Amino acid sequence: MDMGNNSKVIKCSDYEWNGVSRKEYKDDSSCFKGVHRYSLLGEESDELELTFQTRYFEVEAGGYTSFEYHRHPHSVVIIRGGGTVILGDTLHELSLHDVVYISPNSLHQFHADRGKRLGFLCTVDRYRDRPTLPDVDEIKQKVQSPAVLDKIKR
Amino acid sequence: MDMGNNSKVIKCSDYEWNGVSRKEYKDDSSCFKGVHRYSLLGEESDELELTFQTRYFEVEAGGYTSFEYHRHPHSVVIIRGGGTVILGDTLHELSLHDVVYISPNSLHQFHADRGKRLGFLCTVDRYRDRPTLPDVDEIKQKVQSPAVLDKIKR
Repeated sequence: MDMGNNSKVIKCSDYEWNGVSRKEYKDDSSCFKGVHRYSLLGEESDELELTFQTRYFEVEAGGYTSFEYHRHPHSVVIIRGGGTVILGDTLHELSLHDVVYISPNSLHQFHADRGKRLGFLCTVDRYRDRPTLPDVDEIKQKVQSPAVLDKIKR
Repeated sequence: MDMGNNSKVIKCSDYEWNGVSRKEYKDDSSCFKGVHRYSLLGEESDELELTFQTRYFEVEAGGYTSFEYHRHPHSVVIIRGGGTVILGDTLHELSLHDVVYISPNSLHQFHADRGKRLGFLCTVDRYRDRPTLPDVDEIKQKVQSPAVLDKIKR
């Protein structure tokens, strides 16, 4: 019987995890600024029993993630600093330990717009669709709020 | 098209989340002490797109979770205090933001044994098997380390 040989603890010191490299947020040409990605669990070959992946994203002060949507949902918990998230047609202030649920096809973008970093854990299905970056016409069709339209970076 | 009406932010203040009740750790007769459970995402009817659940557990100083194993894996991130975790035949000290992977059938137990609380996020599959609590014979068969045997509470 497998007694859990793959179980492990990944030690952390000041938001850097032992053996976990800081990567580029995305490889493609999505529009974003100052975002770093840490894959914590679910991508290594000894963690394949996980049907989901646990990642940590850190957005530098003044940075933002790409404005996008996709079918797979996100479970997010803020663990550093604060900022703002666009969820569809609304803006929400984010503080430490706030939880964000991003439901399927919901437009979203994280902003570190409070003079500090914004760091969050984000859990997703291992097998998931790629994000769509809406163009100007699609945004015009889907977003009515002037405050949100003004906030979107792309 | 669903524009993400179910997306939401759950605000947090000092490890209490808006509208999220603090529950008993378990309803059955598992042996544990001073453990509270907060279901953050994946249990409500408007979050059914999530194939996993995000929970927060808080163990009071001196408390511990039940010593158990199950087929479903755990992804854990410490977000408050520290303690110790038993993983199979080994003990690991836990500090803020450490990540724990508990692979299928791995015996495990969290202890808040450093004079402070131990709080952690724990993500699991929505559909999962129930834990097994090993009896003395099974423990004797599976655990060799005297330090671990001495640490187990049941």
